[in-house]
Amino acid sequence: MTDVRVGFIGCGNHATQNLYPALRYAGMDLAAVCDLDKRKAQRVARQFGAHRTYQDLGTMLDEMDLDAALVCGPPELHFEAALAALERGCHVWTEKPPAPTLAETEQLAAYAAQVGRILQIGFMMRFAPAYVRLKQIIESEEFGAPSLIEAKYCCWNVSNHRHHLIYYGVHILDLVRHLMGEVTELAVLKCERDGQLANAISLRFASGAVGLVNFSSLQPRVQERVEVTGESALAIVDNRVNLTYHRPGTNEFGETTWSRPDFAIPNQANSTLELQGYLPELSHFAAAVRGEAEPAATIEDGVAVMRLLDLVEQNEGEVVQVG
Amino acid sequence: MTDVRVGFIGCGNHATQNLYPALRYAGMDLAAVCDLDKRKAQRVARQFGAHRTYQDLGTMLDEMDLDAALVCGPPELHFEAALAALERGCHVWTEKPPAPTLAETEQLAAYAAQVGRILQIGFMMRFAPAYVRLKQIIESEEFGAPSLIEAKYCCWNVSNHRHHLIYYGVHILDLVRHLMGEVTELAVLKCERDGQLANAISLRFASGAVGLVNFSSLQPRVQERVEVTGESALAIVDNRVNLTYHRPGTNEFGETTWSRPDFAIPNQANSTLELQGYLPELSHFAAAVRGEAEPAATIEDGVAVMRLLDLVEQNEGEVVQVG
Amino acid sequence: MTDVRVGFIGCGNHATQNLYPALRYAGMDLAAVCDLDKRKAQRVARQFGAHRTYQDLGTMLDEMDLDAALVCGPPELHFEAALAALERGCHVWTEKPPAPTLAETEQLAAYAAQVGRILQIGFMMRFAPAYVRLKQIIESEEFGAPSLIEAKYCCWNVSNHRHHLIYYGVHILDLVRHLMGEVTELAVLKCERDGQLANAISLRFASGAVGLVNFSSLQPRVQERVEVTGESALAIVDNRVNLTYHRPGTNEFGETTWSRPDFAIPNQANSTLELQGYLPELSHFAAAVRGEAEPAATIEDGVAVMRLLDLVEQNEGEVVQVG
Amino acid sequence: MTDVRVGFIGCGNHATQNLYPALRYAGMDLAAVCDLDKRKAQRVARQFGAHRTYQDLGTMLDEMDLDAALVCGPPELHFEAALAALERGCHVWTEKPPAPTLAETEQLAAYAAQVGRILQIGFMMRFAPAYVRLKQIIESEEFGAPSLIEAKYCCWNVSNHRHHLIYYGVHILDLVRHLMGEVTELAVLKCERDGQLANAISLRFASGAVGLVNFSSLQPRVQERVEVTGESALAIVDNRVNLTYHRPGTNEFGETTWSRPDFAIPNQANSTLELQGYLPELSHFAAAVRGEAEPAATIEDGVAVMRLLDLVEQNEGEVVQVG
Repeated sequence: MTDVRVGFIGCGNHATQNLYPALRYAGMDLAAVCDLDKRKAQRVARQFGAHRTYQDLGTMLDEMDLDAALVCGPPELHFEAALAALERGCHVWTEKPPAPTLAETEQLAAYAAQVGRILQIGFMMRFAPAYVRLKQIIESEEFGAPSLIEAKYCCWNVSNHRHHLIYYGVHILDLVRHLMGEVTELAVLKCERDGQLANAISLRFASGAVGLVNFSSLQPRVQERVEVTGESALAIVDNRVNLTYHRPGTNEFGETTWSRPDFAIPNQANSTLELQGYLPELSHFAAAVRGEAEPAATIEDGVAVMRLLDLVEQNEGEVVQVG
Repeated sequence: MTDVRVGFIGCGNHATQNLYPALRYAGMDLAAVCDLDKRKAQRVARQFGAHRTYQDLGTMLDEMDLDAALVCGPPELHFEAALAALERGCHVWTEKPPAPTLAETEQLAAYAAQVGRILQIGFMMRFAPAYVRLKQIIESEEFGAPSLIEAKYCCWNVSNHRHHLIYYGVHILDLVRHLMGEVTELAVLKCERDGQLANAISLRFASGAVGLVNFSSLQPRVQERVEVTGESALAIVDNRVNLTYHRPGTNEFGETTWSRPDFAIPNQANSTLELQGYLPELSHFAAAVRGEAEPAATIEDGVAVMRLLDLVEQNEGEVVQVG
Repeated sequence: MTDVRVGFIGCGNHATQNLYPALRYAGMDLAAVCDLDKRKAQRVARQFGAHRTYQDLGTMLDEMDLDAALVCGPPELHFEAALAALERGCHVWTEKPPAPTLAETEQLAAYAAQVGRILQIGFMMRFAPAYVRLKQIIESEEFGAPSLIEAKYCCWNVSNHRHHLIYYGVHILDLVRHLMGEVTELAVLKCERDGQLANAISLRFASGAVGLVNFSSLQPRVQERVEVTGESALAIVDNRVNLTYHRPGTNEFGETTWSRPDFAIPNQANSTLELQGYLPELSHFAAAVRGEAEPAATIEDGVAVMRLLDLVEQNEGEVVQVG
Repeated sequence: MTDVRVGFIGCGNHATQNLYPALRYAGMDLAAVCDLDKRKAQRVARQFGAHRTYQDLGTMLDEMDLDAALVCGPPELHFEAALAALERGCHVWTEKPPAPTLAETEQLAAYAAQVGRILQIGFMMRFAPAYVRLKQIIESEEFGAPSLIEAKYCCWNVSNHRHHLIYYGVHILDLVRHLMGEVTELAVLKCERDGQLANAISLRFASGAVGLVNFSSLQPRVQERVEVTGESALAIVDNRVNLTYHRPGTNEFGETTWSRPDFAIPNQANSTLELQGYLPELSHFAAAVRGEAEPAATIEDGVAVMRLLDLVEQNEGEVVQVG
């Protein structure tokens, strides 16, 4: 397996905490980093072994002969850097949201299709091992057809509703689509308390299944829980890492399986890089670039999610068609 | 404290499993039991120490000079027996549903008001200690105003949707109203799988809070979970007995309290009679009859719940006003 | 199946809370109750449907033509009543301890053997469904030979060490023997804090397995947990009702099964009468009396446990042989 | 705060997985790395930003003017590298075990004392946040004097008992000493199954408290759990990251607090680098080198633990004095 030669645009906290440390496991070679802040770029380059540093992304893309660009910064940067990299023939992975608006996201999707390059979005949740396993379970014959999903992704108070939606809301909406398929109807009931919103979202899917999503900024810390009902079956992921599967059947012992990471073992499989989904999403991107995996969490998903997100933002107590 | 003199109408499985055994702790004296099946009545009378047995409820009510009647049977019986007992000046506790239909439930409510007698409905969930404590928590100043409730009450396959609603649906709808107040808007998205329904219900409350209720017959066994969000606070009851309270505040240790019954102690507080709510609901009824407690879970609540239930049954993907 | 005709000696709190309510499910017919306190006996007789009441146990045993006697009171009563009942040809179930001392327990065992009657002791833990299932698991081929048991049975402060041992210690020692077989060596390290004892007990079994038992009165409430290690397998019962089984194998998902009672279902299987072991132990006794089951938790087990208990009381920091 | 200038000896899997990634948060500047395998050293140097690489540790120590050396390799290397680094005036952090034998560990301790340098051992467990919090709890007035500790640190099958002891046994013995103080008596009951050992260890501490330790290689994966009893109080750490504290008092709601990491938040506090203890132990070492913290987990602790470990290895069913 040849490492994918990448340039990374953005050297902020999230990137250095959760993305750069994953690169060396993800089948990538960090050829260059780019940040407006030269000292940040130099520090990151040294800490994660990049060959070169840049302050201008165009220059990096022109000079470095990259297979792919990775982007993590504000939404405007995602959009501009993705366009610039696609233009040079690079495949692109960018953190979410792919762009500040739906229109720009659609523009990105069109351009990626035109140039025939992979444009993967940072929907790491769907790559977290517990959700990968959840998807396998709900697609199994034993589980039956998924009938209902409940998903909660709630957090502490936020300062800006739009940011809350495009930074956090995209995650849970992508995960719900990933697990259940296309959304065809949607309604949102909202409660505002002290400037914060509780969004009670109900959904219908093309499959006939239905859904309930709690997306709010009125819970302490970050709370995440997903429950999928099948036909006499129930599978739950709690706190991103704990999986409980109530298998179809009766009340007898042994019908429920359960897993949690063994934190007493300090190996890669039990590291947060893996469990939270960052390492697997980057590994997947690298594999897709090498042609060894189907592209996933693509800009098409990004478009669908940004569309849902606008509906969530604008909807108030009315069941509307999606699409 | 004087025991309330009661006659019990109905000697079926649920009654003998969960209600009769609670009477001796609930401040009641079981004066008589009544069942069409004479041998059942006699067995129950002996096992739970009733003085007399009857096959006809009117005769029992006429002869026994009761303070109150307890009723547990099919919905038609609840309605007829409650009317008959109220007519004789008895206070009444009846299992849910109070009657087969909303119209009859309203008739009961009107009659109880007219005769000035207590008519309590078997909404035991709100008396379960974990929910009593949940209500205290969500009404505390620390918790902030409740903003969103998620409630799940799901079970195995059922043979009849209407029965599912009037036997099970009433419980979760009463609990949600009890915790959050009056419902003003409601919508239901439904998924049918192999003749079973998943009901994804969204709600708005008069308080401004919103809600998401999963009421389905597509999960294994019986699954129950209630989560209430406040303002940066979250309280959860799982499996009716486990309470977790994420108190408002930061990520530090010690912010979450948790309780479960200690099943290694075989005392009344840790018995399922108490934990599931049957004993406390009957104790409350006895206290109300003695004038020592406010009536609760009354026929007015029954009317409100039967009204919601009809809306749940009829609604499909439309936000409608309740009222 | 014919009900076993029983007389019950003792009408105290524990009996009326946990034993009398189980009789009607246990295949027994309560012919008579006996208590020095006539009003207690009469109340219990009425509440649980006994035909007759007595204040003198000899008179009851002489007059009632019983299949079996049930005994629940102070240890002296267990001993005397068991002897008296065996003498009249009754089978006997008695609460633990079977007698105040090892010598008297041995006397009971000898007499029961002589008269050929069943003498079952109230070791209900081994009949609790979670422990029944635990035993099945640890005896399975998959589990491998049990190698180590950890057991905790701790409680709040006690007023009398001897009472603590004969009322509580007998339970955990019986359970450990029941699961792991005969004890051959034992040592106790003790810590006294404010008049309370923490007993750190280590054990060796005839099977070669070893054990660690924490029997202390320095924990809040009552805390119970048992973990058995096999060969690359681990099975745990926590709080008497929750069972976790880490099956042999690797770190992959799905290797752990887990069960808990569904408290949202108010049926017999999920009632504390069943879950705590009282109902199953009485059912077993009735079955043994009818010749449909092997006697279990017999006075022979009682002797073995009382012997261990004396060693625990007297031992301080020395590994001694048992037997 | 000035970064501590360190050289790291050893570029193996564990080091690159769990230690090197922690350096950039730990207040250290990675001046050089050393490994016999030149390519490994170069790769690590690039990935973690070291200035220089060496194949010979003496040369590195002579040339680089280091504040401190970090060592991670086989036990023989720990011993030799620590001696060599102390000789050059460096402070040293080394993975456990500090040396292959007790005698060599004592030699290291004597030499570190002679040259007045810090020699910290890789006992990361005591730095894991859940254990830090556990220690605070058990030292609080509310908790009362710790009376009993139960600790389990079990794993899958091992190929070599001595390795199992010096690589894994040291961790749990250090943690037990760290929490409870000096051990004065010890006994081990052993069960061998298919070449693997279950060690049932009982302990007495200088404080009067007692302990039970299960150290075995017959459980699936790695299982870790520590319970400390106080006076009517109980605190538990499970799976290294989950903390439950049953506070002293009665059976009422709210007496138990509980915490777990929020894995839905990808920040440093919830990363496995932090939660498993690797980052905090290195941060502590750096702080101690800068004179801002007391040395902890020192070679004196290493000597005490290696002494206990020899006793565990040699003991069979006899209570012996330690020291």
